[in-house]
Amino acid sequence: MFVKNAWYNAGWDYHFTQSQQNGLKQGKGALVARKIAGERLVLYRKPNGQIVALEDRCVHRQAALSLGVKEGDNIRCMYHGLRFGPDGQCNEIPGQEHIPTKACVRSFPVVERDNWVWVWMGDPARADEALIPFAIGPSHPDWNVKTSQMQVAASYRLEIANLADLTHLAWVHQGTLGGPDLQTRAKFTTIKPTFTATSHSLRTEYVVRDVPISSFMAHLFPPETRFDLWFDITHTVPCTWVLHFRVFLADGKADGEPAGQLIADTWTSQAVTPNDGETVDYYYSWGAARHCEFPGLSELLRDNLDDAFTEDRHVLEAQHVRVREKPDFPTISIIHDNGPSRMLRVLDALLAAEAAGAARPQPLTEAAVA
Amino acid sequence: MFVKNAWYNAGWDYHFTQSQQNGLKQGKGALVARKIAGERLVLYRKPNGQIVALEDRCVHRQAALSLGVKEGDNIRCMYHGLRFGPDGQCNEIPGQEHIPTKACVRSFPVVERDNWVWVWMGDPARADEALIPFAIGPSHPDWNVKTSQMQVAASYRLEIANLADLTHLAWVHQGTLGGPDLQTRAKFTTIKPTFTATSHSLRTEYVVRDVPISSFMAHLFPPETRFDLWFDITHTVPCTWVLHFRVFLADGKADGEPAGQLIADTWTSQAVTPNDGETVDYYYSWGAARHCEFPGLSELLRDNLDDAFTEDRHVLEAQHVRVREKPDFPTISIIHDNGPSRMLRVLDALLAAEAAGAARPQPLTEAAVA
Amino acid sequence: MFVKNAWYNAGWDYHFTQSQQNGLKQGKGALVARKIAGERLVLYRKPNGQIVALEDRCVHRQAALSLGVKEGDNIRCMYHGLRFGPDGQCNEIPGQEHIPTKACVRSFPVVERDNWVWVWMGDPARADEALIPFAIGPSHPDWNVKTSQMQVAASYRLEIANLADLTHLAWVHQGTLGGPDLQTRAKFTTIKPTFTATSHSLRTEYVVRDVPISSFMAHLFPPETRFDLWFDITHTVPCTWVLHFRVFLADGKADGEPAGQLIADTWTSQAVTPNDGETVDYYYSWGAARHCEFPGLSELLRDNLDDAFTEDRHVLEAQHVRVREKPDFPTISIIHDNGPSRMLRVLDALLAAEAAGAARPQPLTEAAVA
Repeated sequence: MFVKNAWYNAGWDYHFTQSQQNGLKQGKGALVARKIAGERLVLYRKPNGQIVALEDRCVHRQAALSLGVKEGDNIRCMYHGLRFGPDGQCNEIPGQEHIPTKACVRSFPVVERDNWVWVWMGDPARADEALIPFAIGPSHPDWNVKTSQMQVAASYRLEIANLADLTHLAWVHQGTLGGPDLQTRAKFTTIKPTFTATSHSLRTEYVVRDVPISSFMAHLFPPETRFDLWFDITHTVPCTWVLHFRVFLADGKADGEPAGQLIADTWTSQAVTPNDGETVDYYYSWGAARHCEFPGLSELLRDNLDDAFTEDRHVLEAQHVRVREKPDFPTISIIHDNGPSRMLRVLDALLAAEAAGAARPQPLTEAAVA
Repeated sequence: MFVKNAWYNAGWDYHFTQSQQNGLKQGKGALVARKIAGERLVLYRKPNGQIVALEDRCVHRQAALSLGVKEGDNIRCMYHGLRFGPDGQCNEIPGQEHIPTKACVRSFPVVERDNWVWVWMGDPARADEALIPFAIGPSHPDWNVKTSQMQVAASYRLEIANLADLTHLAWVHQGTLGGPDLQTRAKFTTIKPTFTATSHSLRTEYVVRDVPISSFMAHLFPPETRFDLWFDITHTVPCTWVLHFRVFLADGKADGEPAGQLIADTWTSQAVTPNDGETVDYYYSWGAARHCEFPGLSELLRDNLDDAFTEDRHVLEAQHVRVREKPDFPTISIIHDNGPSRMLRVLDALLAAEAAGAARPQPLTEAAVA
Repeated sequence: MFVKNAWYNAGWDYHFTQSQQNGLKQGKGALVARKIAGERLVLYRKPNGQIVALEDRCVHRQAALSLGVKEGDNIRCMYHGLRFGPDGQCNEIPGQEHIPTKACVRSFPVVERDNWVWVWMGDPARADEALIPFAIGPSHPDWNVKTSQMQVAASYRLEIANLADLTHLAWVHQGTLGGPDLQTRAKFTTIKPTFTATSHSLRTEYVVRDVPISSFMAHLFPPETRFDLWFDITHTVPCTWVLHFRVFLADGKADGEPAGQLIADTWTSQAVTPNDGETVDYYYSWGAARHCEFPGLSELLRDNLDDAFTEDRHVLEAQHVRVREKPDFPTISIIHDNGPSRMLRVLDALLAAEAAGAARPQPLTEAAVA
């Protein structure tokens, strides 16, 4: 149901308060409980700042380690006092000299990058940092990125399909990310993207030309102003979606790269982390390039994502209930399913490859994308 | 589990605001989501006032049509913009010329009558308006009927059994519909109704003689006044219960039709709509004839139903939990089970006939009722 | 899953208001609904004060008797008016002369002792009052016992294991029942109890020497004062845990019975009643001997139990979720599992003996305890 040999996002770095370094008393506040791909994890920072991820389940009687305490590099279960090192090995059993080898909880590789915390949920020997998706985080010097998060009660497969086809901006998000008028709606739903596939991601590029600005920014420009909107998306299975979104004054051309004045140059980085089959944690950010920013733009982008993803949440949660009720309901496919189908095929290929004991699947041919 | 070839009640007509006709902006408010007999429906009025009922599940990816918008006679799914006509056929797929024939959601026959909205949940070719039960609605010129509704967390089979035996007025409703004293209680529990059966309904008539008025009306009369109460009930499987309830000054006779002065002449119409096996929507009304009304009587009747059905709700919800826990618990039958057993036998006969592909079952003989 | 031929605790005697004797109007307040070992019960006092326990499920249609009313020694179902005697036999069916023999609900033996209400959930012929565990109740003349209660969303097996090993005081309860410092923690986790086994209980005795007082009492003594704490516990399967807890000024000795001044002499009696496999009702008390009491001590003891059992509740509820998720998770055992394993072995022996139709199992040998 979940690809295990993959990096999953466990949240923003600031969720993991490094109490030893900021003078706060060490305590439970620095222990973070997460559920990722069906597994319960406890995460915490060591005094040197590195984050540890262990299964949140004591090997003695399944008590929650996340109700325990940090002790230096270690975590102590506060039910019977077993203490575990960052590798998951028990190194103290109060009242007992002998510590069995199997007194050990699972430890998961963790990498911090771009202010995101990544956890590898599969075989640690296969953890490959090169597979961590590109992103622009809030500490990047060139972009003023703002962050947020949300939980959604839906399968992550529905989230993947949602992100893989932006024609839904015309409908779900007409009052936020989409355009307010019917002509803009038509342009959004007749885009012909350029697809570039790899084994586990899909790059989608397209320009929506000669349209008003998105609804949430409409108050910033004279109503008659026309824009070209350039989308450059890299969607990586199972978990990450990154968009380089640029707004230009309309150049009056029918195709090619936009040549009008660059009005806004932005990146949004988004991670969908399945808790299990029923809910996801969604971590996302948006921000503008400092070179052509104006005051409040990045906050406006982030706040608008909160609104827009609440719109998605309503749609996806109602859809999830219906899919659970009728998993075999006969559906039809439409032209815009290309992206979603592609991403779910890649996901299924990864699941099948992993079930067969193989490494990650080979890149699909371009033909398979069309 | 549910008879499909039957009319189910989807609520009062005023639940389906006809925005085009009253000047309100068209919007989601005019889309009504219901769950009836296990199916999710979305209902809305066309500009000509007719109500449409479709499966609330887009044929593309199962998004909720009830989160969409009305467009003239059509409804548009606001996930990817598919538009459906009142027959359920998709008539627009944004960005795509070809519309497959199977791009179609189920459509259900709808009839408005007596201010109630009726939906036929089975084969549309079998929808027969003659099967819609008689009722007195709030717009009837001769009766001042007031409406209400309630949801109850119980199987509709328990609701049917509840309505089919009014001796429970003596116990559940002693402070509302029933009488306050032990003698009245005894009279309620020794009634000998006249039964008249059809294939899918049961008419029950009886008079409770020489009793005080029901508790909820006791403040309106001198305490020593005695009354004859005439009940004339038509209970139709699966969904409807209608009572002509008349209050007379006691005539001192032992039997026959009451001959004292008519004090109140009322109709209550009630519909039990199973959402699924666990909850029902209950739509009900009560009102007095305008020819012998006094101010506040109809409101008093309706408010009392709210109180009384809350009493039933507590009983039925606790019973439902217990039946779910021990479906095979050995129970006994009592003399008053005649009505409930009869109605559940009719329901089971309809279910069996439908499973066998037949039309509605033939009328049971009178002997079967006794 | 539950031993049926055993006494289970249904709460404190004051939960069962004897309305006939205190002048209050008889009513639903005197009908108490409980779920014990998977069965729903209704309990009430007869006018003579004796408590009746019946299955809370009318034999007619499974309505809740606990929504009924008391009538003298009887209880009446307020759905259709069936009346049952304290033996569970129906003795009135309104409107009907004949009462079938099988119109009967299960009746359960009840004994009040030590202000606790005990119900025998199995074969009434086997109900043996000698099996009711010893306890000290709030009406005991020599002890000033205060009572409380709590519901915990965990299997009773986890509660049994929790109570059977008090080394968890060092961890879960460091700020309440346990000691605040590391040295005390070490002493709690290296205790060598004396075990004495019977067929269905385990007595555990140990002294923790030369330690500060428990955290919750620390404000009462100069911080440098040292104490010997004497624990004498009798833990009876499935339901009861009684502790004679005594605090002495430290005598400076390494072993033997404490010989210092007796500072506090207390009893705590605790009963864990499984509602079903998912929750327990926990009834408990604590109090000090009147011969060496000081004002407020017993209230302090009881209030501290509320705090401490809330600590346990958090641990046990998180553990319960995890055990349900991974019932076959491979765990390790530690030296302190002796008590919990012993009690769960006794529970499993009782379950197996009962399944085999036998009486209670024979005492295990002392060797089996070690």
